[in-house]
Order: sequence, then C-alpha cells, then structure tokens
Amino acid sequence: MASEILIVTEAELRQTVHLDETAIAVVEEAFVALAGGNVVMPPILSMELAEANGEVDVKTAYIPGFEGFAIKVSPGFFDNPKLGLASLNGLMILFSAKTGLVQALFLDNGYLTDIRTAAAGAVAARHLAPERVETAGVMGTGVQARLQMQAAHLVRPFERLLVWGRDQAKAEHCAKELAELLGIDVRAETNPEKLVARSQLVVTTTPAREPVLKSQWLHPGLHVTAMGSDQAGKNEIDPKAIFEADLYVADRVSQTELLGELRSAIEAGFWKKDTPPELGAIASGAVAGRRSEDDITICDLTGTGAQDTAIATHVYFLLKDSDAGTRIEA
Amino acid sequence: MASEILIVTEAELRQTVHLDETAIAVVEEAFVALAGGNVVMPPILSMELAEANGEVDVKTAYIPGFEGFAIKVSPGFFDNPKLGLASLNGLMILFSAKTGLVQALFLDNGYLTDIRTAAAGAVAARHLAPERVETAGVMGTGVQARLQMQAAHLVRPFERLLVWGRDQAKAEHCAKELAELLGIDVRAETNPEKLVARSQLVVTTTPAREPVLKSQWLHPGLHVTAMGSDQAGKNEIDPKAIFEADLYVADRVSQTELLGELRSAIEAGFWKKDTPPELGAIASGAVAGRRSEDDITICDLTGTGAQDTAIATHVYFLLKDSDAGTRIEA
Repeated sequence: MASEILIVTEAELRQTVHLDETAIAVVEEAFVALAGGNVVMPPILSMELAEANGEVDVKTAYIPGFEGFAIKVSPGFFDNPKLGLASLNGLMILFSAKTGLVQALFLDNGYLTDIRTAAAGAVAARHLAPERVETAGVMGTGVQARLQMQAAHLVRPFERLLVWGRDQAKAEHCAKELAELLGIDVRAETNPEKLVARSQLVVTTTPAREPVLKSQWLHPGLHVTAMGSDQAGKNEIDPKAIFEADLYVADRVSQTELLGELRSAIEAGFWKKDTPPELGAIASGAVAGRRSEDDITICDLTGTGAQDTAIATHVYFLLKDSDAGTRIEA
Repeated sequence: MASEILIVTEAELRQTVHLDETAIAVVEEAFVALAGGNVVMPPILSMELAEANGEVDVKTAYIPGFEGFAIKVSPGFFDNPKLGLASLNGLMILFSAKTGLVQALFLDNGYLTDIRTAAAGAVAARHLAPERVETAGVMGTGVQARLQMQAAHLVRPFERLLVWGRDQAKAEHCAKELAELLGIDVRAETNPEKLVARSQLVVTTTPAREPVLKSQWLHPGLHVTAMGSDQAGKNEIDPKAIFEADLYVADRVSQTELLGELRSAIEAGFWKKDTPPELGAIASGAVAGRRSEDDITICDLTGTGAQDTAIATHVYFLLKDSDAGTRIEA
C-alpha cells in the first residue's frame, strides 16, 4: 500500500509556520504528557566528529495521544561559515505513531527547533511569571532573544522591554528589531543588573559558560527562564540563585541535572533540595507553581525530544491538507 | 546557499540499486575502516513502544574518507500486517561528511539494509570460505536466504546449493527461486545435518532463539556465516561451535558480544579466548584469516552502522547524476 510523504523545505516552513498560540498550546501539551509519565524519550544520541569539526545529535520522543512522533537530526559543522554555509542544519522526520510509516520530512535546518524552544519559554512564562509583567528583560541578542520575547509577549503582554548583550551594537540592533516586531518600547540596557532590577520577567538566551545573572540581583516578583544551557559546560545563572529562588522548575530533571543550570548548582554544592518539579507538572496543576506575586521563580530549559514531536505533529496538521511542500508516493 | 537534496523511493531504489561487486566492495571498505579505528559509531538508539506494539532503532556511523555519513531509522510496528502494511519500514538519511548538509533521503523501507547485509555476507565468504566451494547451504527461507546466496555466489561461484527451512514448502519455493536466479542446481534439503555435511559454505539466516546448527556437524573445510542474530534473545549456532571452530570472526565485537552468537557462547561459558578478530581486520590483511583449506571458520554478523553509511554513500554516487528520484532545493 503506497503512502504519501510530505516534504517541506526551510523556506516553505518559514512562510507557513509561525510562533503563535497554537504552537505554544501543543508544546504545553507535550510537557504535560512528559511529566505525566508514559512518554518514551531515550537519551540523546550524540556523535562527536573531531576530524570534521562537527557534531550530530539525534533526539526523539514518543508521546501517547500524539498521532506522530518525530526524530530530529541536528548536525553542527563549525567550519561551515568558511564555506559560506550555516553551522547548524538538519531535519525532523515525522512518523505515524500507529504504523511507523514516514509521514513528513521537515528540512527545517533548525527553524522548528527555534519555534518549539521559544514556545517552551512561553509555557514557562504563562505558568510561572507574575500575572502582571510591565517590563521584561532579555539577556543575549541572537535568534532566541527575539523569539523568546515574541513568545513571552503572547502570554504576558508587557509594555517595556530591555535588551542586554556583551556586544552593545548587537543589543541595539536586537532592540530595534523587537520594537518593530512587538510595537512596544524596547531599549538596549548596558547594565545587566539594572535590566534584572527593572524586570518582572527575564529570559537568558546566551551560550555563557560563566553566569550572566547573579544571585544578589534576584528580587521579589521576578521570574527567570534560562534557556541557553544545553551542554555540560554552559552556565547562565549563578548557581546560588537556583537554590535561593522560591521555586526552581526543570523542563526535564534528567536533562537539567546533566546539561542545564541545575548541573552547575549541584556541582557548586548549592542544590540540597529534593528532586525539583518539572514544567509539565506545573502546567497540568499537579504541582503548585508561583504561590504569590512576590515569589522568585526560575525555569531551566534544556530542550526535549517531546517538544520536537509536538511541533512536528503540529506542523503536519497545519500543512497536510494545504498545497505547501512536495508530496511523494512511497 | 541552497543545496539540492535527492529523494528516492523504495520502488526507485529497487529498480536502480542491485547487489553487485561494487556494493560488496564499498561494504568491505567500511569494514576495513571500522577495524582500523577512527570510525565514530555510537551505540544504537533504541526505543520500545509497548503501547503501539512497535520499536524504533537508529543507527549511524561516520567513516573517515567516506564523503557522507548515513543515519538510518528503522521502525518495526508489529500490528501493521493487520492493516495490510509491512511491519518494517524506515529510511536512510545521507549527510555530507564535510558540511553536515542533507544530501539524500532514501525511503527504502529496509531495502538498502537488505543489500548491505547480504554484501557483508559476501565479504565474509570472500575472506573466510575455502577457495573452492562446490556446494553451499543456506538455513532459512526468507529475503536474506535469497540475497545471501546471491551475494556469496558472486565471490564463490558454487555449482550446487541446498536450502533448509522449518517449513518445507517455503524451502522448496526458495530453492526454486534461487535456481532461477543463479542458474545452478538448487534443492531443498529436509535434514539440516546433511546440508552442513555436504557444504563448504553455510549461511544461517533465521530468527532462531535455539541453535539450528549443532557443533558436532562442523567438519574440516567448512565456513559458516551466521547473520540471523541481532538481538540478545536470538541464537543460531550451538555455543560450543563458536569455541571449537579454528577461527571465530565478529563484524563488531562490541555488538556480537551483546547481540550475536558470541553472546550465547559467552553466556554458555564456552568463550574463554581473547578478544576475537573483526571482519575488517581479516579483510585488510592485518589479521590472518583461514590458514588452510581444512580450517573451520565462523563469522558472526549483527549489522553495523558502518555498512549503512557505506551503502548510502554508494547509492548516492550511483544516482546523483542520474535522473532517478526527486530533487528538492533546500
């Protein structure tokens, strides 16, 4: 029996898939399933290619109730810029959760990862940030700085936004773009301490290996989402802050203790508490989140295969009856 | 910079890719590289989906000197036959070994795995079987029974072939097909002991969980390739035979000790020798293979990601300048 496979390129995906409420909802659903058990999410398959100055990661997750499951392959080849190519590439393959048949190939070069990562930030902000956020702050000036603020603004429509980066010119540029995108007052802030002091919601989006957010900057009514650390060597948040916050939440404890901010906190000896809650348990209401407007909360996002399955399933649903992409009888 | 991705369906692959000398040569090259070190081959990523009565395996290997590396995804969904679908599906994705860009998607549903598995059998026969094979025997009557004999016949053009299977009708049918394919005398043999006694080369291709080839049947001048076991529960060859043969060779020791015949031999306490040699070391000449026409040799094939990279690279080279498949600018 022949089946039809949908193939969609990055350019086509950028035209048709956007960071919106539906994308956030489907990623939230994946987190709830992940915390509820029964998700099958094997450890990341990781291959270091020293000879090619590259690496390849493969992530996947099967979520009961989702019609498909994705396998994502993310190659990073760091000599590519010398050839005029992007370092990061890759694709998601969507399989039927019932038959294992290939349903779609999304040649996204990381675009869908960008979307699902930002959507996770929105889930964190929705369930952990104070109800009223007047000012948000973002640390870092890359793609995720922009997307995280777009995502957060959908769930907490703040009026002011501060942008900090190590490179002031990039911060100015990022602020200008975000002002246009969100239609609000956005300024570059050279002093990260001031950025944190003035914000009720801060998202860190840097590849930092030394903390960029200090524990003494924490203040009542602050929520911080740290999404930059996804490797054992990275660390954005002062390890002490993880301990001192009223609530620390992991996207997936088994990942944050190895790759996220929790790893640094454990290593520094600052984490003596019990197993922390996961974002899905907060989102489902199984575990209490913020208890008062004065709480200090931190959410640690390392990125999960469950989010990949969620976004790929969502995109397939969006596009399967459209005329986007190429269809192959296989 | 846009790049072109070649997409080829199973039907197109069956028309254009065949089990031939070139396929065998490229798989042999992969084995030589594998035994020589520097190949990056992470453990298989395996996902059990109890709820869907399915499983998914992901294999990959990076081989220095090869222009690409493959990632193979093999879903097995065992309720599919009820829906009129094959249980086994899947695809290979070929990436540039230099840039990590996707070069090709082979929607092969296991066809290329069939080819590379049979090619490995030919590599084993070429380097381990006696120079002169008059009679070959195959145990099992499935796709690999056919392909293994076609592959073996390319390197040892035997004149007679015996086929044994638990189901006599299937053995007769398989014998008839092989007689047509090879143009030689092929007969179904009901007694497996006689099959082994009369053959100089035997390939076992069954999913057996109890040995189908007994140690007392071994005789001087016999080579056996066991390719059926690829899981911890499977076992085709009497564990004692692994110990008693003059030479036991693994495709990859780290796999055969967990998934192959070596596992059963270790478990039964029959393996007290040193680390056995790998097929690539024999093929390259680094380690001596058969020392005399009277030696008894056994080769244990569990299937490696290196073979997948080899066959995918070969197929890409074959098809990239042809008009086969669909091309997408991505």
